[in-house]
Amino acid sequence: MKNFLALNLAFLLFSFVATGKDIIKVKNEAELKTAISSAKPGDEIILSNGIWKNIQIKFDSKGTKDNPITLRAETSGKVSIEGGSDLKIGGSYLVIRGLYFRNGYTPSKSVIDFHIDSSKIANNCIVTDCVIEDFTQLNRVRSDHWIEFWGRHNELSNSYLSGKSNQGPTIMVILEGNEQINNYHKIINNHFGPRPRKGGPHGETIQIGDSGTSMAPSYTTVEHNLFERCDGEVEIISNKSNNNIYRNNIFYKSEGSLVLRHGNYCTIDSNIFIGDENSDFMGGIRLINTGHWITNNYFYKIKGSEFRSALAVMNGVPKSPQNRYNQVTDAVVAYNTFVDCDTPWQLSVGANMDKSVVLPAQEIRSARPTRTILANNLIYNSSDAKAPIKAYDKIDGILFKNNIINTDYESKSEPKELQKNSFTLNKQSDWLYVPTANYTDVYNGFDFETIAKDIFGNDRSTKNSVGSMVFPVDKNKGQINKKDFGTSWFSNEAQVATPKTIQVNTQKELIKALSEASSNTIIELKSGTYKINESLKIDKTITIQSKDKKNKAILEYNGANNTAAFLMLPKGNLMLNAVILKGNNNQNAFTTKEKEMSAAYNLKIANSEISQFDYVLKTYKDSFSDTIAIDNSIIKNCKNAINLAAENDDLGEYNAEFLFITNSKFDNISNNILDYYRGGYDESTIGGNLVFDNNSVINSGKLETSGTLLKLQGIVNVTISNNIFSNNAVKTIAVLWGEKEQKESNNKIDNSGEFRTEQNLKQKMMY
Amino acid sequence: MKNFLALNLAFLLFSFVATGKDIIKVKNEAELKTAISSAKPGDEIILSNGIWKNIQIKFDSKGTKDNPITLRAETSGKVSIEGGSDLKIGGSYLVIRGLYFRNGYTPSKSVIDFHIDSSKIANNCIVTDCVIEDFTQLNRVRSDHWIEFWGRHNELSNSYLSGKSNQGPTIMVILEGNEQINNYHKIINNHFGPRPRKGGPHGETIQIGDSGTSMAPSYTTVEHNLFERCDGEVEIISNKSNNNIYRNNIFYKSEGSLVLRHGNYCTIDSNIFIGDENSDFMGGIRLINTGHWITNNYFYKIKGSEFRSALAVMNGVPKSPQNRYNQVTDAVVAYNTFVDCDTPWQLSVGANMDKSVVLPAQEIRSARPTRTILANNLIYNSSDAKAPIKAYDKIDGILFKNNIINTDYESKSEPKELQKNSFTLNKQSDWLYVPTANYTDVYNGFDFETIAKDIFGNDRSTKNSVGSMVFPVDKNKGQINKKDFGTSWFSNEAQVATPKTIQVNTQKELIKALSEASSNTIIELKSGTYKINESLKIDKTITIQSKDKKNKAILEYNGANNTAAFLMLPKGNLMLNAVILKGNNNQNAFTTKEKEMSAAYNLKIANSEISQFDYVLKTYKDSFSDTIAIDNSIIKNCKNAINLAAENDDLGEYNAEFLFITNSKFDNISNNILDYYRGGYDESTIGGNLVFDNNSVINSGKLETSGTLLKLQGIVNVTISNNIFSNNAVKTIAVLWGEKEQKESNNKIDNSGEFRTEQNLKQKMMY
Repeated sequence: MKNFLALNLAFLLFSFVATGKDIIKVKNEAELKTAISSAKPGDEIILSNGIWKNIQIKFDSKGTKDNPITLRAETSGKVSIEGGSDLKIGGSYLVIRGLYFRNGYTPSKSVIDFHIDSSKIANNCIVTDCVIEDFTQLNRVRSDHWIEFWGRHNELSNSYLSGKSNQGPTIMVILEGNEQINNYHKIINNHFGPRPRKGGPHGETIQIGDSGTSMAPSYTTVEHNLFERCDGEVEIISNKSNNNIYRNNIFYKSEGSLVLRHGNYCTIDSNIFIGDENSDFMGGIRLINTGHWITNNYFYKIKGSEFRSALAVMNGVPKSPQNRYNQVTDAVVAYNTFVDCDTPWQLSVGANMDKSVVLPAQEIRSARPTRTILANNLIYNSSDAKAPIKAYDKIDGILFKNNIINTDYESKSEPKELQKNSFTLNKQSDWLYVPTANYTDVYNGFDFETIAKDIFGNDRSTKNSVGSMVFPVDKNKGQINKKDFGTSWFSNEAQVATPKTIQVNTQKELIKALSEASSNTIIELKSGTYKINESLKIDKTITIQSKDKKNKAILEYNGANNTAAFLMLPKGNLMLNAVILKGNNNQNAFTTKEKEMSAAYNLKIANSEISQFDYVLKTYKDSFSDTIAIDNSIIKNCKNAINLAAENDDLGEYNAEFLFITNSKFDNISNNILDYYRGGYDESTIGGNLVFDNNSVINSGKLETSGTLLKLQGIVNVTISNNIFSNNAVKTIAVLWGEKEQKESNNKIDNSGEFRTEQNLKQKMMY
Repeated sequence: MKNFLALNLAFLLFSFVATGKDIIKVKNEAELKTAISSAKPGDEIILSNGIWKNIQIKFDSKGTKDNPITLRAETSGKVSIEGGSDLKIGGSYLVIRGLYFRNGYTPSKSVIDFHIDSSKIANNCIVTDCVIEDFTQLNRVRSDHWIEFWGRHNELSNSYLSGKSNQGPTIMVILEGNEQINNYHKIINNHFGPRPRKGGPHGETIQIGDSGTSMAPSYTTVEHNLFERCDGEVEIISNKSNNNIYRNNIFYKSEGSLVLRHGNYCTIDSNIFIGDENSDFMGGIRLINTGHWITNNYFYKIKGSEFRSALAVMNGVPKSPQNRYNQVTDAVVAYNTFVDCDTPWQLSVGANMDKSVVLPAQEIRSARPTRTILANNLIYNSSDAKAPIKAYDKIDGILFKNNIINTDYESKSEPKELQKNSFTLNKQSDWLYVPTANYTDVYNGFDFETIAKDIFGNDRSTKNSVGSMVFPVDKNKGQINKKDFGTSWFSNEAQVATPKTIQVNTQKELIKALSEASSNTIIELKSGTYKINESLKIDKTITIQSKDKKNKAILEYNGANNTAAFLMLPKGNLMLNAVILKGNNNQNAFTTKEKEMSAAYNLKIANSEISQFDYVLKTYKDSFSDTIAIDNSIIKNCKNAINLAAENDDLGEYNAEFLFITNSKFDNISNNILDYYRGGYDESTIGGNLVFDNNSVINSGKLETSGTLLKLQGIVNVTISNNIFSNNAVKTIAVLWGEKEQKESNNKIDNSGEFRTEQNLKQKMMY
């Protein structure tokens, strides 16, 4: 009997080795748990197609290099992880493939986490071919990460992530603990879809380390990713550790920069930054700290300045605290090409020696870049050029060598910052200009031979050229094929439906239409009065307009006090056109939800008349609007007009990115016309933005205790022009922020107080 | 003819290749220059034996890996480089051998410099078998380095350096500029002979980087060196960059520590720290910053505390400025042995949250060590033990695992900091205690398998043990053979000569004896009066004593006003025993030179009587005494007594390390008895030191404007005990520094003011 058992055991062991790799298909959480707990090297666990709701997966198995354990969707993209769900990975040599996170959000601190706890940390694990879409917290100040890297040698590849609107970097690489250093993680071949403007800090797409771990060697590689409209905040990527590599990525019309915020000795090589003729928000690379190499990059139409310039080289704080700005030293910026970027090189950005009155010493950036080389770079302007260089301090610590430009430039120093050279580039695609010859007079600085290839991988050792490209350039370059990035199965190319129009005659029909309409619908109101007793909820893209623009429909709101005619919900997108909206003086015309404003809303009012409300727009804390626009409208007989001042924590947050008020009339608003507020000294975001043009404001401000008609505390970009202010009972129309070069222009003021400029705003320190 | 030339040329080329390596002997600077300028790979340039004075050598040749170019002494040690001389190395694959720098000092910033200028930096160069002895600046605040490392892959090996008494680290590794990072320099097999106490900061023996380059990866190896009485300051080695390796060094009775001042991820492995029963000044390792591994080290009789403890783990400043104290994180202290060290583990050293009143926020060290492991360490006490751990703050961020001690210890936390285990160690040499068995219950932390060997190179993977040694230990371990370190030709083992005694009867004979005597001479004075008209200069070790102690000789000083009876010169070492010394009220008894006090002096006065002087001891700026001792003497009828207060720049310098005043009487001193001063907030030095015991001070202080009899501003260690203070016209005897636990004890005070304690001294910030 004993022998028989031994024999059987031997057989079992043998069969285990021989047929070792099992494929285990699971249909529910219990089966999945069992499968994970008994998984062995080489196994494949398959999640059945369908919706997996409220599932928290802990994948803590141990594969081997040659026989990893795979957890994958039955069909990539057909396994939907929804509700309160997350995935934590804690073993080694594990592969996760094909999952689709949507319709929910993580109940923990991350959606996919490369660790379970401090004793279960992932190493050599791969997440690939996955999508996380709009899997965002209901409250934008509830912080999480979508991917949290721990351990070493982990990878996120060929995945698509978009729509994170809450606080926290989309991807966070943790460097706390020796288990995490020298990690050699890979973030490769991904497609980062749009991340909406967050309105305040903590909206990075990738952050590697933090100031407290900025001394750690990380060696994370971010390579061949597409960043498409990643607009979360001023830092698309926030580098906060050492030795990371950013190579061969495309930053497409993304409002922010690749920022070397902390940490040293990183490589930024062969990336493409594509901006937009009409945006000042899209940046390039912002350089801080020591020993970074910025080589072979291509910048097209990056029109931003200061923090958002194509190349921003910052001033540092002498002996900087760990979380502020170290001096730039030992940096190399070589072989880059800048096409149609206005003023691509902004040097000593952040120099603020004049602000020592309002800022503590550890905020004063007086340490200029030093031991820094700018060499073999090429600046090309296809038409009239602005000054290519703006320096905010002396540039005595930068060595300029063999940089060329095709337009006139008068150097201020020797060696010359730029040498004029009458070359031309050929336009090869919408955004790619390629050289027509090589400009072979290159500077060979220390270790420059390590810049062995150009942006497209051509060898520089045989023939070399100033700029990011060596001639000739492959004719196929210059296209962005989204299929080269992200998953095998997901596309974010939306099919734009033709708007449908619904005709409405009664309030009942209006309410029905609103509730049943699909997004992108136009609701046309017949002339007449619509009595509305409950708030109209807007959670999709809707236009409400009068059919007869000359005989506008009247919406009479009879709801309870403090409620609003229109309630803006997350992703609500309302265009109100040619409508007369009336209240009873104690309600609001528009508000947001009081909480769970998980995504931004937009509100456009045109050709309309709004009267007899407490607030025209009242917003709540944590709500955020991307764009609010009022055009050619009349707002009258209200207590207050636009209120975007609910972010009172002074943590850099604010309630709307863009506010346009144009061609409109404000008459008899008792308090202020606008209260638009951003508190806290913060440089991670550069909003909000106000255009107030060609309006008239009369008979208002009578009850305004602040004495100011347009309250703009902390708002960065302000244009107030061509307005008439008449008979407003205020002392001040607006306080302009001198440091931000805010100016009013061409306004007519009659018995309405005056504009006042404060050079330096006193702000609460956040750090 | 053409063919003949070609043939000849071919022949020459051939002979060059064949007989390529030339040996060029040079006798003077011109020949040397020529030899260097025409040196080719494989050549050997030989400096003729003899003295080379005032020579500045620039060695900027290019050897190859297989054929370096050598510059060497004809006979190692027989080529003396003297006067204003230095050596700058600027090429690659160069070797310098056998030079002896003495009797002079560098006219530049360094004695041996691994760079000539920014375009000529040494790489792969070796300085070996050389000595730099007392090649120190005349003025101790004139800063220089003896060896300055630039470039990469350079080496200082088998050399001896001692006697640097001026400002500046003996060896400085420069990290400014990419040419210097990842340098992999080697400092190996050297003997660092005594470096005298400097009295103030900047007296390190080795410094690698500085705070401004502390982010740079250095990878310098300091291995198998002997540090013998390197007492320059509190940091023997000041690590200020990343990834350096300190291995297998012996720190023998050196007053200071290996300090991880800035920079991260260094390795301190298998070093031996030998202290002294009677010294609190000899330290071990001071840990600051992130990611350091301290393994396999052996500490014997390290009796220091706080900054000088065997293992000092510091508190950091939250978000510290670059030049202050980062928090300790991710550190590993494992497999170390501490024998008879009193309180070897001092944790959260530097915690000073109580000093926020007198210090700015960026000086407050409130950030406790975190993510730090102390494991597998062994503490052994051969007799009664003090508390092995002292914590200056909570220790909640340190994980203690499997540490053992042979004496009683009650743990305060779980896991226990220390577990009692009744083991014994065997004494194998004066300082080496070895295990009698292995304590195999070790903790295997993350990456602990990389601690593959013990202190003596024994494999830990086969058998392992807590502590720095695995049993059994080779019986030959435990000896320091100086021949294993330093040069092939130099020994610092002084032959102590028996003191010679010279009998003296007249002033003429005294002056002659003083001038002609060799060092270590006793001059005996016959009884009687010696009229001295010019200062007696002391520049060697001299005792002056009365032959008949009961009938003491009288020295009557008749020199000009403001001159002194004794002028102390560098290295002057005077013992004045049983002598009566008198002035005319307007001269001084002892002074230093006014400048060029290139080395310290010592002054001992015993059984003597000194009267009628302006100052008993007046010192000048930049002078420094190691020890001043006054015992069993009478000092009376002088305007001032001891003045050590010339360092008024408030940069942490001071004029004497040790001052002992014992069993003596001060009578009728018009001003103060003592003015001993150290200004500037500095932690790099921990002096001066005063013992004032069993004296009587009477009828003094009448004209003292400060109202204080013993002025002690900034002096760290003060003992005032068993004295009588009677009828002194002062308000204050002394102000004691509460923070430094200064106390007076058992003093009798009668009509003499009082002691006052100030808890926190206001000091000028130096940073």
